[in-house]
Amino acid sequence: MSDIQGEIETLGMNARKASRMLATTDGQQRDAALRAMAAAIRDSAPTLLKANQKDLDAGEQAGLDAALLDRLTLNAERIEAMAAGLEQIAGLADPIGEITALKPMPSGIRVGQMRVPLGVVAIIYESRPNVTADAAGLCLKAGNACILRGGSESLQSNQAIAQCINKALASAGLPTAAVQVVQTADREAVGALITASDYVDVLVPRGGKGLIKRISEQATVPVIKHLDGVCHCYVDAGADLNMAERIVMNAKTQRYGTCNTLETLLVDAAVASAFLPRIVTQMTAAGVELRGCEQTQAISPSVGQASAEDWDTEYLAPILSVRVVDGLDAAMAHIEQHGSGHTDAIVTTDYARAQRFLRAVDSSSVMVNASTRFADGAEYGLGAEIGISTDKLHARGPVGLEGLTTRKYIVLGDGHIRQ
Amino acid sequence: MSDIQGEIETLGMNARKASRMLATTDGQQRDAALRAMAAAIRDSAPTLLKANQKDLDAGEQAGLDAALLDRLTLNAERIEAMAAGLEQIAGLADPIGEITALKPMPSGIRVGQMRVPLGVVAIIYESRPNVTADAAGLCLKAGNACILRGGSESLQSNQAIAQCINKALASAGLPTAAVQVVQTADREAVGALITASDYVDVLVPRGGKGLIKRISEQATVPVIKHLDGVCHCYVDAGADLNMAERIVMNAKTQRYGTCNTLETLLVDAAVASAFLPRIVTQMTAAGVELRGCEQTQAISPSVGQASAEDWDTEYLAPILSVRVVDGLDAAMAHIEQHGSGHTDAIVTTDYARAQRFLRAVDSSSVMVNASTRFADGAEYGLGAEIGISTDKLHARGPVGLEGLTTRKYIVLGDGHIRQ
Repeated sequence: MSDIQGEIETLGMNARKASRMLATTDGQQRDAALRAMAAAIRDSAPTLLKANQKDLDAGEQAGLDAALLDRLTLNAERIEAMAAGLEQIAGLADPIGEITALKPMPSGIRVGQMRVPLGVVAIIYESRPNVTADAAGLCLKAGNACILRGGSESLQSNQAIAQCINKALASAGLPTAAVQVVQTADREAVGALITASDYVDVLVPRGGKGLIKRISEQATVPVIKHLDGVCHCYVDAGADLNMAERIVMNAKTQRYGTCNTLETLLVDAAVASAFLPRIVTQMTAAGVELRGCEQTQAISPSVGQASAEDWDTEYLAPILSVRVVDGLDAAMAHIEQHGSGHTDAIVTTDYARAQRFLRAVDSSSVMVNASTRFADGAEYGLGAEIGISTDKLHARGPVGLEGLTTRKYIVLGDGHIRQ
Repeated sequence: MSDIQGEIETLGMNARKASRMLATTDGQQRDAALRAMAAAIRDSAPTLLKANQKDLDAGEQAGLDAALLDRLTLNAERIEAMAAGLEQIAGLADPIGEITALKPMPSGIRVGQMRVPLGVVAIIYESRPNVTADAAGLCLKAGNACILRGGSESLQSNQAIAQCINKALASAGLPTAAVQVVQTADREAVGALITASDYVDVLVPRGGKGLIKRISEQATVPVIKHLDGVCHCYVDAGADLNMAERIVMNAKTQRYGTCNTLETLLVDAAVASAFLPRIVTQMTAAGVELRGCEQTQAISPSVGQASAEDWDTEYLAPILSVRVVDGLDAAMAHIEQHGSGHTDAIVTTDYARAQRFLRAVDSSSVMVNASTRFADGAEYGLGAEIGISTDKLHARGPVGLEGLTTRKYIVLGDGHIRQ
């Protein structure tokens, strides 16, 4: 075993032990720790800025680009946001210990399910140091120990944040191993972490698609992951076109870089000539490049030509592909073939078609008459979000505290035996 | 791509297509197909027996042992049980389409979760041909298409059962690709199936531990799996010893070969000299071999000596390991170290210790004053069971129809856009 594998194994064993202790804490104690974490981060702002400056200096020397350096940067506002985020998590209801549906069975036993922590959660993320506090806070709230592996470019910042967290954990009487940061920048640590099935119950990679794809292909630990967000909006023959225009504009232009941003507009042929010129004018005015199918171009000649690739592309940019389709079934077939199972919406006033779309489209969020931009933990009332899952198992769509828990069966008897 | 990979890919594409159609069927149509499957199996009994005889003849020639040949055997009773099982599944409530917790959000949208099929389920199993009908029935009820890969020794039987199923699907207006049996006995097919992430949403291996371990190590498709059942019963100082005796005897001796059978008895030192002689007498009378720790042997000298290995062993046989522990914490530490996270029970009249055990023991079923033998889908009221999961994610404990489904978010708006 290499030194790095040994380090990960030690972190794993400590995390496992801490997780057993955390599983029996009450919510008030975990909330007190979260509030102490917020206070420690506020109090240590100068130290955090100093550590962050070291990362920034090293990053500049290493030639990181401006966007990356920006993501890496801590300032007074971002430090306050970290602290406030932890306090917000402390204010959420405790998910742990809830017993659902305790029911008597014909044998006389009572059977229910109790919500319990998953155990040990590993988070692998890229440059933003605030993830260290956010992820630690969410894991702790759900009674999990966590092992955090941030980008090597933010190691100093992450360690400084972790020190605040550990001080707060100790002051609240919780094991400091409840939150551990991988100390080495060596990439071998990632490989060791994602295969540490004995110690890690679930892995949450956060970052670019490349990172997530690589990790989920190599991991033996179960992964909660988010891949593409190729989101669709289908404007049905029965749509209120004013509403459709408002929704499509919002879904595409409210923010370009988010995973729930609209990437492909599908328009029923029955309303294409009424709707397309309007939306083309609006999108063009907003600076959005349009790439359309032949029918779209025939109606709106200013639209560029979409290639086969366009239909599968998550632009994350002011570009929209547009396709005229022959009704609901064609729209759903397009989504089935080209979608990524993230978020898809229909705009319609037709009851039956709305119901069919809701039922049949196999995506983590399916919407009627609403902007795809709503696919978000906060908008769904989850309080906080560890990520958005495009997987079908365990957690699907925005993942809040519940996704960091599991349910075990509990059986209450009074000496019952099986016949 | 090899021929076998090609065959699996074709099965996968057909299953995917069928699953999209199944997802929008209503429950009555699926139930009609299930009842037609039952009827077709009853009507085809002679054909099934003939196909099964071919498997049995080949099995005898290949020198399969008696136990395996017994599992492989179909007879009138087993055929009727298959048919009745399908009718029972048809009688269960439709899990699909249920919308939970549709709530208005501050933005005005309403957000809920809809239960939907997983999509395509692959089942890999060993010799019992009845799994073909059971698994197909459960998958269909939950709106999934399935690909079935039974043991090569039962291929003729499985194909004959599949023919009944396909006839019934067609008669109910459902795609026959909703249930497909892998036609080749080549083991390469298993490798292709467990890595067919584009077409298969979840894998349920059913069989011996060797099969399950191998499959889950090599699969890239998510697996719902069951490994060990090293189940414990802890007799607390506060136990009613008559109750404890009844529960422990039932948990160990009601059936030896099941995963929820008791394998290790833990006894609080405070009641060890009162309890052990009683249980040793009873177990010995029942023909159970006892292997104990030193303290156990000091109290009951007839008990053999347990080796370090015994504490980690799932006997599936009339053997019980027995350990005296120093109270609840020591019992939970033993379970944490040696348990398999399957099913563990406490016998006690003490409220606080019962609550602590329930909360802290990290197993798929945790019981108070009940026999571990209750850990079972039917006893839990699930109606039917595809297996018992010792995983923590997605499905934990007995897995019924719900484990074969997922929930997607649905958003209902009235032209809402994100601010």
